[in-house]
Parts: sequence; structure tokens; C-alpha cells
Amino acid sequence: MGRDLPKRVQVVEVGPRDGLQAESKFVSTETKIELVDRLVGAGVRRIEAASFVSPKWIPQMADGAAVMAGIDRRAGVTYAALTPNMKGLEGAIASKADEVVIFGAASEAFSQRNINCSVAESLERFAPVARMAKAEGLQLRASISCSFGCPYQGPVSVDAVVDMVRRFRDLGCDEIDIADTIGVGTVHHVQQVVEAAAREFPLDRLAGHFHDTYGQALANIVGALQVGMSVFHSSVGGLGGCPYAKGATGNVATEDLLYLLDGLGIETGIDLDAVVSIGDWVSQQMGRDNGARAGKALMAKRASN
Amino acid sequence: MGRDLPKRVQVVEVGPRDGLQAESKFVSTETKIELVDRLVGAGVRRIEAASFVSPKWIPQMADGAAVMAGIDRRAGVTYAALTPNMKGLEGAIASKADEVVIFGAASEAFSQRNINCSVAESLERFAPVARMAKAEGLQLRASISCSFGCPYQGPVSVDAVVDMVRRFRDLGCDEIDIADTIGVGTVHHVQQVVEAAAREFPLDRLAGHFHDTYGQALANIVGALQVGMSVFHSSVGGLGGCPYAKGATGNVATEDLLYLLDGLGIETGIDLDAVVSIGDWVSQQMGRDNGARAGKALMAKRASN
Repeated sequence: MGRDLPKRVQVVEVGPRDGLQAESKFVSTETKIELVDRLVGAGVRRIEAASFVSPKWIPQMADGAAVMAGIDRRAGVTYAALTPNMKGLEGAIASKADEVVIFGAASEAFSQRNINCSVAESLERFAPVARMAKAEGLQLRASISCSFGCPYQGPVSVDAVVDMVRRFRDLGCDEIDIADTIGVGTVHHVQQVVEAAAREFPLDRLAGHFHDTYGQALANIVGALQVGMSVFHSSVGGLGGCPYAKGATGNVATEDLLYLLDGLGIETGIDLDAVVSIGDWVSQQMGRDNGARAGKALMAKRASN
Repeated sequence: MGRDLPKRVQVVEVGPRDGLQAESKFVSTETKIELVDRLVGAGVRRIEAASFVSPKWIPQMADGAAVMAGIDRRAGVTYAALTPNMKGLEGAIASKADEVVIFGAASEAFSQRNINCSVAESLERFAPVARMAKAEGLQLRASISCSFGCPYQGPVSVDAVVDMVRRFRDLGCDEIDIADTIGVGTVHHVQQVVEAAAREFPLDRLAGHFHDTYGQALANIVGALQVGMSVFHSSVGGLGGCPYAKGATGNVATEDLLYLLDGLGIETGIDLDAVVSIGDWVSQQMGRDNGARAGKALMAKRASN
């Protein structure tokens, strides 16, 4: 099937940040710390651990500093934090985050409705954050939301995504996420966007962030692997949801992704069985159904053995 | 990405039979009839409508004759019935089914545990069913269960599947389903099995029947499309479950499959929006959560408009 798939994939665990952020139930600082530490124990080497965003916007993430302080920091693990502005960056620096994440939408309508400014203005606001992050020697990652469609304007062009890739590249970003915020992309569209983005930025530093809202996430990841993408985001237990479609599915589950990659013989360094246990535990902690299908199936199999 | 995908795909709707069969709640004959008729109204041209199996085995399917009699039969639509033995075949003939379905496992352990006989014995029992079905001018389809793994013996070899393909071919089957009964396959494995099966039987008469138990179904369908498979089974609202993993997901949802195929520009003749409404309706009838992620997302979108 065309080119060979990557031999190794980096799985960026986003459950403790992107996942929890979209959950209505508040999760205690203690549980967040345990979640991060257990995931790292399972072999996760890149993890979104906190968001330094105003607690007025996202109360769930108000304890970012306490989470970062409480984690058992391990060498070789990259702990990332979302930093929407200079104040957030200062928080991330004080917390000794290894990587900070800035963001922007490939949709003008989304930018206006989500952060009350144009895409161009959002990039201007992020410029000093990017400069200071680089000056501090932090890894700088950017996330392009709505790369495949927007809840307000509908379709998003490949060109709009490529334009954002160029802008974030010019801000000095080390890695850029192509994010399907509302999960509307399908496999050929994904391949087109990844290939177009890779003409502007190194393919091995482009990450795929797929939501499973329309059930397409894993199929899209297969398509992205086939065009050489090798960094993917996922969320343990499928933590998270879709604020634009109540009750719908959010991030692709780490368990489902690892099951796929294990089946393809692609190395991740992460132990699926350990992640299955963590997904079961955190789902119970939150009183929610386990959103990982492989997780559920493997738990049922354990129970029957 | 390698060869072109098929321009047109046949979607075989299995919700009213394979789906309902795995649901614990009994569905009234009236609802089953309405389900079949509404699906055909949405453009479905191939549908599993009944199973002529002993009601002692599967009480849910006891009203097969009444369902077949009550359906508003449309020209150009193939109504299929599962026929585990001669008695079942007689029922299917009396009900004027267009297609009958026989089955066998690619796993010896599954055959023994599921139908109390060896694979060879099960094929012997099906031989007269196949002969009579052909003599009556019915379409004859065979389903190979456990084509990717077995709940009892674990791994299933590609050779075991190919052997079953040959045996069903030799029984005169018009179409053969490669079924991932417990949803354990991943994309390269699927491509290997489909390519091997296609060396023994025409590829355009091999069908993919994928369960989403480990979240892999749609990714596997993408892989199968890439090696030229063009007939796929799915279940409206993701009806069905997995008897080998309680609480886990069963058949891939028709809505998720159609969303994928629409996104790839592959024709099916089926109206996704109409199927979304049917999936929502039948889920409500059964008091169950809608198992179609695209169905849920599109219903949420309707509600917000």
C-alpha cells in the first residue's frame, strides 16, 4: 500500500488537559497528578499536563500550577502546558513545563466566536509568547484548530490550514498540530492536508490531533500514517467530549490508537495493558462510561478470564 | 495512495438481523417491519431482514416469517435471511427471501463451542442447504466468522480463512463475507486476508463484515477499500453488541460508514441524513444509546440549528 508506514510513532497523551478540559465533572488535583504519573509509568513520554488559562474561562484547569508541582517529574518525559497568553506562559515557566502550546484556528469564524478576535490578531498576541518561550529554551508547539471544518463557517480549505502552518513556522514553532477539532475530516481530506502542510514544515514535526465525533479518527490516523505522519495525539479512556455536539465523542482514545499501532507493528514504547487499566480507573473516578472501545473490550476480556 | 478506491460501494444493512439478534431487548414485529421499510426508503438495496433459526436458540428472531410477510417488498431490493439448516431454508423460501446466508467459522474452537460440531461437519450440513438454495434460484451467501481472531483459540491464520473461502466457493456461493466477529483485526491484517481471499474468489463478491469492538472497524474498511473490496456490512445505529465482550461495541454503524464513503466521494445510493433519523428512532424504540457516532453528532447538529 504505497509507502511504508513509520516504524515508530510518538503518541502525545492529551487526556489530562484537552480531555479533562471538556469534561463537566471537576477532577481533583490529586486525581490529575495520579493520572499523569500513571500514564508516564505506562511508557508515555509526551503528555499535556496542564493549561495556564484563566480559571474564569476554564475552571477545570484552575489547578495547573498545583498539578505541575505535584507530578513526579521523570527525565526523558516532555510535560506540556497550554499557554494562551503571556500570563499563561509565565505560569508555565514557573511550573517548569518542558513544552508550551499556543493555538489558532484555520477558520476566521471560529477565531471570532471562540477567542473574540481575528486569526491575524490571535497570531499577533501569540508572537511575544512564542518569542519568550524560545528565549527561555522551551519547546514551542502550535495547534491549528478547525483544520478540517468549523462549527460556525462549515468547510475549511486546505489553503487556510497551510497558511496557518506558515505563520506558526514563522513564529519559530518546533511542532505544529493539525487538529480536527470537531471530527469532521475523512481520510482523503486528511491525506491532502497533511501532504500540503508537509510542503511547508518538516513532516516529522507535524502532529495529527483527531477527534472521533463522526467515528473517523482512527481511519484518519491510518490515512495520515500512510502519508508519513508519525506524531499523534490521543486521550486515555477517550476523555473529553465535543462542546459543539453535546453527547458526542471527543478525542480518539489512546487505547484504540495503541491497539491499532500494536497491530501494525509500529513501536510506541507505551504498554497498552497498563493504559487500559488507567482508562478504566479514570473513567470510574469520573463516573463516566469508558470511551475507549479497545479499553472496554480488553477489560471485558480480563473479567471473563 | 496506491490503487484507486472503488467508485461505488454496496452497503449491506445488517441491523435488522445481525444487529437485533445481539440485542437483549425484544423488538416487536411491527418495529422490525418499519425498520426494514424505512431503511429501504433511505436507499438501502441489500438488507438482512430475518433469520430462520430455531426460536429456542434466538428468541429475538422468532418472528422472521411475519417480518418477511409484513415488509413492503420493493423491486430491486435484495432481502436476505439467515438459514442455519434445511428447515430454515424452507422458511426462507416460503417467505420469498431473495438471498439466503449460510455460515462457518475459520476457527475450529469457535465452531465446536458455537454450533457443537467441527468446521468440516458444519460444511457438510450446509451442503444440501446450498444445493437447494441454488436449485430454487436464490442468491447464496456465506459468512466466514472469526476471520481475524477467535474468542476461544485466539489467533486465526490467513490460511484458515482462505480454506473456508475455497470450501464455500465449492458449495456454489455467490458471495462470501469475511467477518471479524469479535473485532480484533487491524488494517494490515485485513489487507492480507482480503488479498489472499481474492486469489480464490472474485474480489467484487467478497464482503467485509467488521465489528467495532476494538474501535478498528472503519480503519479496517479503509484498508479493505484500498485493496479493492467494495461490499461492506453495517448496522444502523450500531445496533448489536458483542456477546464475547459484555458492554462492548458490535457492528460498525451504517451512519459512520456512510459518512466515510460520502467523504471519499464513493457512491452508495443511500441517504445519510435519512439513515441518521432511522438510527435515532430505532435507538429510542429500544431505549438504548445511539451507537453511531456520526449519527449522534449529526443529531446534535440538527438540534442546535
